[in-house]
Amino acid sequence: MKKLITISREFGSGGRELGCRLADQLGAAYYDREIITEISKRTRLSQEYIQGIMDNRPHISFPITVARSFSMPGSEVSLQMELQVFQAQKKIIEEMADRSDCVLVGRCADYILRDREPFRIFVYADMDSKIARCRSRASGNEHLSDREIRHNIEQIDKSRSKYYTFHTEQKWGEKTNYDLCVNTSRFDVKQLTRMLASFLS
Amino acid sequence: MKKLITISREFGSGGRELGCRLADQLGAAYYDREIITEISKRTRLSQEYIQGIMDNRPHISFPITVARSFSMPGSEVSLQMELQVFQAQKKIIEEMADRSDCVLVGRCADYILRDREPFRIFVYADMDSKIARCRSRASGNEHLSDREIRHNIEQIDKSRSKYYTFHTEQKWGEKTNYDLCVNTSRFDVKQLTRMLASFLS
Repeated sequence: MKKLITISREFGSGGRELGCRLADQLGAAYYDREIITEISKRTRLSQEYIQGIMDNRPHISFPITVARSFSMPGSEVSLQMELQVFQAQKKIIEEMADRSDCVLVGRCADYILRDREPFRIFVYADMDSKIARCRSRASGNEHLSDREIRHNIEQIDKSRSKYYTFHTEQKWGEKTNYDLCVNTSRFDVKQLTRMLASFLS
Repeated sequence: MKKLITISREFGSGGRELGCRLADQLGAAYYDREIITEISKRTRLSQEYIQGIMDNRPHISFPITVARSFSMPGSEVSLQMELQVFQAQKKIIEEMADRSDCVLVGRCADYILRDREPFRIFVYADMDSKIARCRSRASGNEHLSDREIRHNIEQIDKSRSKYYTFHTEQKWGEKTNYDLCVNTSRFDVKQLTRMLASFLS
Protein backbone atom coordinates (compact mmCIF):
# COMPACT_ATOMS: atom_id res chain seq x y z
CA MET A 1 0.00 0.00 0.00
CA LYS A 2 1.25 3.48 -0.87
CA LYS A 3 2.44 5.87 1.76
CA LEU A 4 0.27 8.97 1.66
CA ILE A 5 1.00 11.82 4.00
CA THR A 6 -1.02 15.02 4.10
CA ILE A 7 0.14 18.15 5.85
CA SER A 8 -2.08 21.00 6.87
CA ARG A 9 -0.28 23.92 8.44
CA GLU A 10 -0.62 27.33 9.97
CA PHE A 11 1.22 29.99 8.02
CA GLY A 12 4.72 30.46 9.42
CA SER A 13 4.71 27.20 11.38
CA GLY A 14 7.30 25.45 9.22
CA GLY A 15 4.80 22.94 7.83
CA ARG A 16 6.08 23.37 4.32
CA GLU A 17 9.69 22.76 5.40
CA LEU A 18 8.59 19.73 7.40
CA GLY A 19 6.70 18.32 4.42
CA CYS A 20 9.58 18.91 2.05
CA ARG A 21 12.15 17.28 4.36
CA LEU A 22 9.83 14.40 5.14
CA ALA A 23 9.27 13.63 1.44
CA ASP A 24 13.01 13.74 0.94
CA GLN A 25 13.71 11.34 3.82
CA LEU A 26 10.96 8.94 2.77
CA GLY A 27 11.92 9.06 -0.90
CA ALA A 28 8.37 10.21 -1.65
CA ALA A 29 7.07 12.82 -4.09
CA TYR A 30 6.32 16.27 -2.69
CA TYR A 31 3.34 18.29 -3.89
CA ASP A 32 2.49 21.78 -2.83
CA ARG A 33 2.29 24.58 -5.42
CA GLU A 34 2.54 21.88 -8.10
CA ILE A 35 -1.15 21.26 -7.49
CA ILE A 36 -2.05 24.82 -8.49
CA THR A 37 0.18 24.66 -11.58
CA GLU A 38 -1.61 21.51 -12.67
CA ILE A 39 -5.11 22.93 -12.03
CA SER A 40 -4.11 25.95 -14.09
CA LYS A 41 -3.05 23.76 -17.00
CA ARG A 42 -6.28 21.80 -16.99
CA THR A 43 -8.78 24.59 -16.41
CA ARG A 44 -6.88 27.25 -18.37
CA LEU A 45 -7.42 29.62 -15.47
CA SER A 46 -4.35 31.56 -14.39
CA GLN A 47 -2.40 30.39 -11.35
CA GLU A 48 -3.05 33.79 -9.75
CA TYR A 49 -6.79 33.42 -10.19
CA ILE A 50 -6.76 29.90 -8.71
CA GLN A 51 -4.63 31.06 -5.80
CA GLY A 52 -7.11 33.92 -5.36
CA ILE A 53 -9.97 31.45 -5.04
CA MET A 54 -8.06 29.51 -2.41
CA ASP A 55 -7.06 32.64 -0.53
CA ASN A 56 -10.45 34.27 -0.43
CA ARG A 57 -13.77 33.33 0.93
CA PRO A 58 -15.77 31.41 -1.65
CA HIS A 59 -18.31 33.68 -3.41
CA ILE A 60 -16.09 36.72 -3.25
CA SER A 61 -13.26 35.99 -5.60
CA PHE A 62 -14.91 35.99 -9.02
CA PRO A 63 -13.65 38.36 -11.71
CA ILE A 64 -16.31 40.68 -13.16
CA THR A 65 -15.34 39.77 -16.74
CA VAL A 66 -16.32 36.16 -16.17
CA ALA A 67 -19.60 37.08 -14.59
CA ARG A 68 -20.53 39.25 -17.58
CA SER A 69 -20.02 36.46 -20.07
CA PHE A 70 -22.84 34.47 -18.44
CA SER A 71 -26.34 35.63 -17.85
CA MET A 72 -26.27 34.62 -14.19
CA PRO A 73 -25.86 36.59 -11.01
CA GLY A 74 -22.18 37.05 -10.25
CA SER A 75 -22.15 35.05 -7.07
CA GLU A 76 -23.56 32.00 -8.81
CA VAL A 77 -20.91 32.14 -11.52
CA SER A 78 -18.27 32.55 -8.86
CA LEU A 79 -19.55 29.51 -7.00
CA GLN A 80 -19.51 27.45 -10.19
CA MET A 81 -15.94 28.48 -10.92
CA GLU A 82 -14.90 27.56 -7.42
CA LEU A 83 -16.53 24.18 -7.58
CA GLN A 84 -14.95 23.57 -10.98
CA VAL A 85 -11.53 24.41 -9.56
CA PHE A 86 -12.18 22.13 -6.59
CA GLN A 87 -13.19 19.26 -8.89
CA ALA A 88 -9.96 19.67 -10.85
CA GLN A 89 -8.00 19.84 -7.60
CA LYS A 90 -9.67 16.65 -6.36
CA LYS A 91 -8.89 14.76 -9.56
CA ILE A 92 -5.25 15.93 -9.60
CA ILE A 93 -4.68 15.01 -5.96
CA GLU A 94 -6.19 11.56 -6.53
CA GLU A 95 -3.93 11.03 -9.53
CA MET A 96 -0.89 12.11 -7.53
CA ALA A 97 -1.84 9.65 -4.79
CA ASP A 98 -2.23 6.88 -7.39
CA ARG A 99 1.17 7.54 -8.88
CA SER A 100 3.59 7.00 -5.96
CA ASP A 101 4.25 7.55 -2.25
CA CYS A 102 3.76 11.26 -1.65
CA VAL A 103 3.55 14.11 0.79
CA LEU A 104 0.78 16.59 -0.07
CA VAL A 105 0.72 20.02 1.54
CA GLY A 106 -2.58 21.86 2.00
CA ARG A 107 -5.41 21.94 -0.57
CA CYS A 108 -7.80 19.76 1.48
CA ALA A 109 -5.78 16.66 0.51
CA ASP A 110 -6.51 15.03 3.90
CA TYR A 111 -10.22 15.23 3.14
CA ILE A 112 -10.01 14.40 -0.57
CA LEU A 113 -8.00 11.25 0.15
CA ARG A 114 -9.91 10.25 3.30
CA ASP A 115 -10.99 6.85 1.96
CA ARG A 116 -7.34 5.89 1.45
CA GLU A 117 -6.52 6.72 5.08
CA PRO A 118 -3.51 8.99 4.63
CA PHE A 119 -1.38 9.89 7.64
CA ARG A 120 -2.73 13.34 8.42
CA ILE A 121 -0.44 15.85 10.09
CA PHE A 122 -1.34 19.35 11.30
CA VAL A 123 1.59 21.68 11.95
CA TYR A 124 1.12 24.71 14.20
CA ALA A 125 3.07 27.08 16.43
CA ASP A 126 2.55 30.00 18.76
CA MET A 127 2.35 33.47 17.24
CA ASP A 128 5.80 34.72 18.37
CA SER A 129 7.43 31.70 16.85
CA LYS A 130 5.53 32.15 13.57
CA ILE A 131 6.49 35.83 13.37
CA ALA A 132 10.15 34.92 13.97
CA ARG A 133 9.99 32.28 11.24
CA CYS A 134 8.44 34.73 8.77
CA ARG A 135 11.21 37.22 9.56
CA SER A 136 13.93 34.64 9.09
CA ARG A 137 12.55 33.80 5.65
CA ALA A 138 13.27 37.47 5.01
CA SER A 139 12.35 38.34 1.44
CA GLY A 140 9.59 40.91 1.48
CA ASN A 141 9.17 41.02 5.24
CA GLU A 142 12.10 43.27 6.13
CA HIS A 143 10.11 46.48 6.23
CA LEU A 144 7.11 45.06 8.10
CA SER A 145 6.46 45.51 11.80
CA ASP A 146 5.64 42.51 14.00
CA ARG A 147 2.07 43.74 14.08
CA GLU A 148 1.85 43.75 10.30
CA ILE A 149 3.36 40.28 10.01
CA ARG A 150 0.92 39.04 12.65
CA HIS A 151 -1.95 40.56 10.72
CA ASN A 152 -0.80 38.81 7.52
CA ILE A 153 -0.49 35.46 9.29
CA GLU A 154 -3.97 35.80 10.74
CA GLN A 155 -5.49 36.75 7.40
CA ILE A 156 -3.86 33.87 5.53
CA ASP A 157 -4.92 31.33 8.15
CA LYS A 158 -8.44 32.72 8.15
CA SER A 159 -8.61 32.17 4.40
CA ARG A 160 -7.21 28.64 4.67
CA SER A 161 -9.71 27.85 7.35
CA LYS A 162 -12.67 29.19 5.34
CA TYR A 163 -11.63 27.41 2.16
CA TYR A 164 -11.17 24.13 4.05
CA THR A 165 -14.48 24.37 5.89
CA PHE A 166 -16.38 25.35 2.75
CA HIS A 167 -15.24 22.24 0.86
CA THR A 168 -14.99 19.69 3.66
CA GLU A 169 -17.58 20.79 6.24
CA GLN A 170 -14.91 20.07 8.82
CA LYS A 171 -13.12 22.50 11.08
CA TRP A 172 -9.60 23.33 9.94
CA GLY A 173 -7.04 22.65 12.67
CA GLU A 174 -9.51 20.68 14.82
CA LYS A 175 -7.33 17.85 16.15
CA THR A 176 -9.89 15.09 15.62
CA ASN A 177 -9.35 15.50 11.86
CA TYR A 178 -5.64 14.65 12.12
CA ASP A 179 -3.48 11.75 13.29
CA LEU A 180 -0.78 13.96 14.69
CA CYS A 181 -0.65 17.66 15.55
CA VAL A 182 2.88 18.99 15.81
CA ASN A 183 3.77 22.23 17.58
CA THR A 184 7.02 23.62 16.14
CA SER A 185 7.38 26.49 18.65
CA ARG A 186 10.02 24.84 20.81
CA PHE A 187 11.40 22.10 18.61
CA ASP A 188 13.56 21.97 15.57
CA VAL A 189 11.75 21.04 12.36
CA LYS A 190 14.70 18.84 11.32
CA GLN A 191 14.45 16.81 14.53
CA LEU A 192 10.68 16.53 14.24
CA THR A 193 11.04 15.34 10.65
CA ARG A 194 13.47 12.61 11.67
CA MET A 195 10.98 11.40 14.28
CA LEU A 196 8.16 11.28 11.72
CA ALA A 197 10.30 9.66 9.04
CA SER A 198 11.35 6.85 11.34
CA PHE A 199 7.73 6.25 12.32
CA LEU A 200 6.44 6.35 8.75
CA SER A 201 9.17 4.41 6.96
CA MET B 1 18.69 19.00 32.18
CA LYS B 2 16.07 16.49 33.29
CA LYS B 3 13.64 14.94 30.85
CA LEU B 4 10.14 15.84 31.90
CA ILE B 5 7.22 14.53 29.92
CA THR B 6 3.61 15.28 30.76
CA ILE B 7 0.70 13.37 29.30
CA SER B 8 -2.87 14.59 29.23
CA ARG B 9 -5.33 12.15 27.78
CA GLU B 10 -8.93 11.49 26.91
CA PHE B 11 -10.39 8.56 28.79
CA GLY B 12 -10.01 5.37 26.75
CA SER B 13 -7.44 6.83 24.36
CA GLY B 14 -4.53 4.72 25.61
CA GLY B 15 -2.68 7.70 27.12
CA ARG B 16 -1.91 5.81 30.30
CA GLU B 17 -0.45 2.87 28.37
CA LEU B 18 1.55 5.26 26.20
CA GLY B 19 2.91 7.05 29.27
CA CYS B 20 3.80 3.81 31.01
CA ARG B 21 5.61 2.37 27.97
CA LEU B 22 7.37 5.65 27.29
CA ALA B 23 8.71 5.87 30.85
CA ASP B 24 9.90 2.29 30.54
CA GLN B 25 11.71 2.94 27.25
CA LEU B 26 13.28 6.16 28.48
CA GLY B 27 14.28 4.68 31.83
CA ALA B 28 12.26 7.43 33.51
CA ALA B 29 9.99 7.32 36.55
CA TYR B 30 6.26 7.02 35.88
CA TYR B 31 3.70 8.88 38.00
CA ASP B 32 -0.03 8.59 37.71
CA ARG B 33 -2.11 7.40 40.69
CA GLU B 34 1.07 7.70 42.79
CA ILE B 35 0.34 11.43 42.90
CA ILE B 36 -3.01 10.86 44.60
CA THR B 37 -1.50 8.39 47.07
CA GLU B 38 1.09 10.98 48.02
CA ILE B 39 -1.47 13.80 48.40
CA SER B 40 -3.49 11.51 50.62
CA LYS B 41 -0.50 10.84 52.87
CA ARG B 42 0.30 14.52 53.27
CA THR B 43 -3.21 15.94 53.66
CA ARG B 44 -4.64 12.94 55.56
CA LEU B 45 -7.63 13.06 53.23
CA SER B 46 -8.68 9.71 51.81
CA GLN B 47 -7.65 8.79 48.28
CA GLU B 48 -11.32 8.43 47.39
CA TYR B 49 -12.09 11.95 48.57
CA ILE B 50 -9.14 13.39 46.61
CA GLN B 51 -10.18 11.46 43.53
CA GLY B 52 -13.68 12.83 44.07
CA ILE B 53 -12.38 16.38 44.03
CA MET B 54 -10.56 15.71 40.77
CA ASP B 55 -13.57 13.99 39.23
CA ASN B 56 -16.15 16.56 40.13
CA ARG B 57 -16.66 20.17 39.40
CA PRO B 58 -14.96 22.29 42.06
CA HIS B 59 -17.49 23.56 44.66
CA ILE B 60 -19.64 20.45 44.51
CA SER B 61 -17.55 17.71 46.01
CA PHE B 62 -17.29 18.71 49.67
CA PRO B 63 -18.45 16.29 52.37
CA ILE B 64 -21.09 17.72 54.72
CA THR B 65 -19.14 16.60 57.78
CA VAL B 66 -16.22 18.82 56.84
CA ALA B 67 -18.46 21.78 56.19
CA ARG B 68 -20.05 21.43 59.63
CA SER B 69 -16.75 21.53 61.44
CA PHE B 70 -16.17 25.08 60.20
CA SER B 71 -18.47 28.01 60.63
CA MET B 72 -18.40 28.87 56.92
CA PRO B 73 -20.80 28.33 54.07
CA GLY B 74 -20.26 24.89 52.57
CA SER B 75 -19.12 26.05 49.18
CA GLU B 76 -16.37 28.18 50.70
CA VAL B 77 -15.06 25.25 52.75
CA SER B 78 -15.19 23.08 49.68
CA LEU B 79 -13.20 25.60 47.71
CA GLN B 80 -10.59 25.80 50.45
CA MET B 81 -10.25 22.02 50.55
CA GLU B 82 -9.84 21.92 46.80
CA LEU B 83 -7.19 24.60 46.80
CA GLN B 84 -5.39 22.82 49.63
CA VAL B 85 -5.39 19.60 47.65
CA PHE B 86 -4.14 21.44 44.59
CA GLN B 87 -1.32 23.02 46.57
CA ALA B 88 -0.24 19.60 47.83
CA GLN B 89 -0.49 18.23 44.30
CA LYS B 90 1.66 21.08 42.97
CA LYS B 91 4.35 20.53 45.59
CA ILE B 92 4.44 16.76 45.01
CA ILE B 93 4.67 17.11 41.24
CA GLU B 94 7.50 19.63 41.59
CA GLU B 95 9.37 17.27 43.92
CA MET B 96 8.89 14.38 41.49
CA ALA B 97 10.27 16.55 38.69
CA ASP B 98 13.27 17.49 40.86
CA ARG B 99 14.07 13.89 41.63
CA SER B 100 14.68 12.29 38.21
CA ASP B 101 13.56 12.06 34.59
CA CYS B 102 9.86 11.32 34.68
CA VAL B 103 6.60 10.87 32.82
CA LEU B 104 3.64 12.41 34.63
CA VAL B 105 0.11 11.52 33.61
CA GLY B 106 -2.75 13.99 34.18
CA ARG B 107 -3.15 16.18 37.28
CA CYS B 108 -2.34 19.46 35.50
CA ALA B 109 1.37 18.54 35.51
CA ASP B 110 1.91 20.30 32.15
CA TYR B 111 0.73 23.55 33.73
CA ILE B 112 2.36 23.07 37.13
CA LEU B 113 5.77 22.44 35.52
CA ARG B 114 5.38 25.03 32.75
CA ASP B 115 8.48 27.01 33.77
CA ARG B 116 10.61 23.90 33.31
CA GLU B 117 9.33 23.41 29.76
CA PRO B 118 8.28 19.77 29.88
CA PHE B 119 7.45 17.96 26.65
CA ARG B 120 3.66 18.12 26.71
CA ILE B 121 1.70 15.37 24.99
CA PHE B 122 -2.07 15.17 24.55
CA VAL B 123 -3.45 11.74 23.65
CA TYR B 124 -6.88 11.44 22.05
CA ALA B 125 -8.95 9.16 19.83
CA ASP B 126 -12.32 8.99 18.15
CA MET B 127 -15.27 7.72 20.19
CA ASP B 128 -15.57 4.28 18.53
CA SER B 129 -11.92 3.59 19.18
CA LYS B 130 -12.23 4.69 22.84
CA ILE B 131 -15.28 2.47 23.38
CA ALA B 132 -13.42 -0.50 21.86
CA ARG B 133 -10.44 0.15 24.12
CA CYS B 134 -12.64 0.36 27.21
CA ARG B 135 -14.24 -2.95 26.24
CA SER B 136 -10.89 -4.65 25.70
CA ARG B 137 -9.79 -3.59 29.17
CA ALA B 138 -12.80 -5.64 30.20
CA SER B 139 -13.10 -5.62 33.98
CA GLY B 140 -16.37 -3.99 34.95
CA ASN B 141 -17.44 -3.05 31.42
CA GLU B 142 -18.77 -6.41 30.25
CA HIS B 143 -22.40 -5.70 31.11
CA LEU B 144 -22.44 -2.14 29.74
CA SER B 145 -23.89 -1.13 26.37
CA ASP B 146 -21.84 1.02 23.98
CA ARG B 147 -24.14 3.89 24.86
CA GLU B 148 -23.38 3.52 28.56
CA ILE B 149 -19.64 3.29 27.97
CA ARG B 150 -19.83 6.38 25.76
CA HIS B 151 -21.72 8.21 28.50
CA ASN B 152 -19.06 7.26 31.06
CA ILE B 153 -16.24 8.42 28.78
CA GLU B 154 -17.97 11.75 28.19
CA GLN B 155 -18.60 12.29 31.90
CA ILE B 156 -15.01 11.50 32.89
CA ASP B 157 -13.57 13.78 30.21
CA LYS B 158 -15.97 16.54 31.19
CA SER B 159 -14.69 16.31 34.76
CA ARG B 160 -11.04 16.29 33.66
CA SER B 161 -11.70 19.30 31.50
CA LYS B 162 -13.42 21.25 34.30
CA TYR B 163 -10.75 20.42 36.85
CA TYR B 164 -7.99 21.44 34.43
CA THR B 165 -9.65 24.68 33.41
CA PHE B 166 -10.47 25.63 36.99
CA HIS B 167 -6.83 25.36 38.10
CA THR B 168 -5.00 26.47 34.96
CA GLU B 169 -7.40 28.87 33.22
CA GLN B 170 -6.47 27.05 30.03
CA LYS B 171 -8.63 24.91 27.82
CA TRP B 172 -8.04 21.18 28.29
CA GLY B 173 -7.20 19.48 24.99
CA GLU B 174 -6.63 22.79 23.16
CA LYS B 175 -3.63 21.98 20.98
CA THR B 176 -1.77 25.23 21.61
CA ASN B 177 -1.17 24.00 25.18
CA TYR B 178 0.75 20.92 23.99
CA ASP B 179 3.84 20.13 21.95
CA LEU B 180 2.34 17.06 20.34
CA CYS B 181 -1.23 15.78 20.06
CA VAL B 182 -1.40 12.09 19.24
CA ASN B 183 -4.49 10.40 17.83
CA THR B 184 -4.43 6.69 18.72
CA SER B 185 -7.52 5.74 16.66
CA ARG B 186 -5.66 4.21 13.74
CA PHE B 187 -2.21 3.56 15.15
CA ASP B 188 -0.74 1.14 17.58
CA VAL B 189 0.27 2.63 20.93
CA LYS B 190 3.46 0.54 20.95
CA GLN B 191 4.55 1.97 17.60
CA LEU B 192 3.67 5.51 18.67
CA THR B 193 5.67 5.04 21.86
CA ARG B 194 8.74 3.93 19.93
CA MET B 195 8.50 7.04 17.78
CA LEU B 196 8.27 9.30 20.83
CA ALA B 197 11.02 7.48 22.70
CA SER B 198 13.47 7.84 19.81
CA PHE B 199 12.67 11.56 19.58
CA LEU B 200 12.94 12.17 23.30
CA SER B 201 15.98 10.06 24.15
